[in-house]
Amino acid sequence: MNVAQPIEWTAEGVVMLDQRRLPGEVIRHTYTGYREVAAAIKDMVIRGAPAIGVAAAMGVALGVERSKARSAEELRAEFPLICEAIAQTRPTAIDLFWAIERMKRRFEQLIAANTPPDALRRAMVEEARAIHAEKRATDEAIGRFGAELMPAAGQVMTQCNAGALATAGIGTALGVIRVAIEQGHKLHVLVPETRPYLQGARLTAWELHEGGVPLTLITDNMVGHIMKTRSVAAVVVGADRIAANGDTANKIGTYQIAVLAHEHGVPFYVAAPVSTFDLTISSGEQIPIEERPAGEVTHLRGVRIAPDVAVANPAFDVTPARLISAIICERGIARTPYVESLRRLADSAAEVPRAGSAG
Amino acid sequence: MNVAQPIEWTAEGVVMLDQRRLPGEVIRHTYTGYREVAAAIKDMVIRGAPAIGVAAAMGVALGVERSKARSAEELRAEFPLICEAIAQTRPTAIDLFWAIERMKRRFEQLIAANTPPDALRRAMVEEARAIHAEKRATDEAIGRFGAELMPAAGQVMTQCNAGALATAGIGTALGVIRVAIEQGHKLHVLVPETRPYLQGARLTAWELHEGGVPLTLITDNMVGHIMKTRSVAAVVVGADRIAANGDTANKIGTYQIAVLAHEHGVPFYVAAPVSTFDLTISSGEQIPIEERPAGEVTHLRGVRIAPDVAVANPAFDVTPARLISAIICERGIARTPYVESLRRLADSAAEVPRAGSAG
Repeated sequence: MNVAQPIEWTAEGVVMLDQRRLPGEVIRHTYTGYREVAAAIKDMVIRGAPAIGVAAAMGVALGVERSKARSAEELRAEFPLICEAIAQTRPTAIDLFWAIERMKRRFEQLIAANTPPDALRRAMVEEARAIHAEKRATDEAIGRFGAELMPAAGQVMTQCNAGALATAGIGTALGVIRVAIEQGHKLHVLVPETRPYLQGARLTAWELHEGGVPLTLITDNMVGHIMKTRSVAAVVVGADRIAANGDTANKIGTYQIAVLAHEHGVPFYVAAPVSTFDLTISSGEQIPIEERPAGEVTHLRGVRIAPDVAVANPAFDVTPARLISAIICERGIARTPYVESLRRLADSAAEVPRAGSAG
Repeated sequence: MNVAQPIEWTAEGVVMLDQRRLPGEVIRHTYTGYREVAAAIKDMVIRGAPAIGVAAAMGVALGVERSKARSAEELRAEFPLICEAIAQTRPTAIDLFWAIERMKRRFEQLIAANTPPDALRRAMVEEARAIHAEKRATDEAIGRFGAELMPAAGQVMTQCNAGALATAGIGTALGVIRVAIEQGHKLHVLVPETRPYLQGARLTAWELHEGGVPLTLITDNMVGHIMKTRSVAAVVVGADRIAANGDTANKIGTYQIAVLAHEHGVPFYVAAPVSTFDLTISSGEQIPIEERPAGEVTHLRGVRIAPDVAVANPAFDVTPARLISAIICERGIARTPYVESLRRLADSAAEVPRAGSAG
């Protein structure tokens, strides 16, 4: 299956698919300097927390690889500037800072070991590529666990874009669907467009179509009617943050899809890496909801579609755990009571188990 | 309260607000010939079943008034051409044919009574204005009954545009809200944008804003989150067709709003004239759902917002009677069991009662 890659390390530089131009234009940029990578992250050429993490790591690696420094000492002087440029891009992206920290730790190890400059350059590139490979492995493990929950045949609904474009792997929710299809499940994906930013219409529909996955695009207000009049076998969505009790923050609209799934007896699954678990908060009530600018609702690609009136624009909502049939992560499947099952998965060995489920 | 009028009879001709240009531009056209009125109906300068009925009646009246015929005989020869031009506009609009039929009956009465041409012209204009006045009276009666169900203060949600722009009166659902506000209720309206055609964003938001009614515009996938996190006192929507058991067809998205209202304990009201009751069908399962072109979903104002993929685009959905707290019409309020209450209201005297409710 063809999986659209938002970012790749190549001999020419870091290649990114410009997600701002999708689905109208498929444009890839090749960045040969870390400042260009920083600008691309800031300008949202790439989006999605895991993909931003990969981009940050590659940006740091590119800065070191292309540095004109002739000694480890010179590299050491330049390194903080590279990290700082990458850090000054998306201030709320946790994965960005996590990736920069990991690259910093590796750099310090290499310096401490008196690694010669050329070997150090190669090792930093290897570290960035390792981070990318780990993201892919995480998605693939989520996909394998989740595929067990998919029907042998039927329609599956998602929301927003929890796909390859967001993770730089095969996707979380879309990874589950991809692996199931590769295993022989006959799935057809229902894609709500996901206003106001249209991640469903612009990104998920494009990504699935490119990958040859059959899909039907719908507007967000068709979800109930489709569940009532067609047979929907399951819903599978991603997550931005999962509380200790299983309450899940995800893109706006996820909550009402969960209510509608419950009303129509459709299982509702969340697919997300362990890194999205936030066991320091006991419930979803403690998750702050970002309110975004009104212009995202009143204008579309610069065209006014509503008068100048008051607008609500919460970017996320919280789905209570009672509406979630299971949470799929790279270490297994959590079911209610989530307080226990999520803790067990969070504490379990980080390596990917081959089968089984917790909770 | 300022009520935006989509159509008016004036000394200069038939004046229509061009709804295709809202909310960006507020443009009124003055039509001085019936062919222009026919073209305006066909080109959707005006939309909404009751408003189309008024436009059809005014188009026929304009044709007769501006006719160059010098005798009743000449008028009689020209009249079928006028009616035919108006009829050849929106083939599925019931109100259009109802209005033309009524204008035809009036014309035949006047001819049979040997009415002189000038008096006949005046009488036909009066008939069109009477139809308009009746639509307004219907809306106002719906508004008075419905206002009794509105909270003294709070947020009320609607869907699509069941307003003045659609009815040429004060609106049905929006009429209920207007009358309540005039009576002193402190209401704030939550307006889902209503994809794909954006009647909520383009028309309802504009109409309420023009009328000084406080509102907040939301996207269709925010309904559940808003009901969960804010206090929503009621939902009030219009209807396209109501079956004998109370099942109600209305704009796509209405069904899931009703499910979400039920989940959150919010009363869900339908406001619609008796003319939308279809007691010949026992349930909503017999209501066919129009499937509209994919381009309405994949493009917005000519701009592509999704790749060229399969699309579902049902224009309406059916809300089962069990989710409807009450149906408000110009003759009173129907409650469950609707089979009895709707029949009683349909059979009751056509004049508007002052108070009370059936069912």
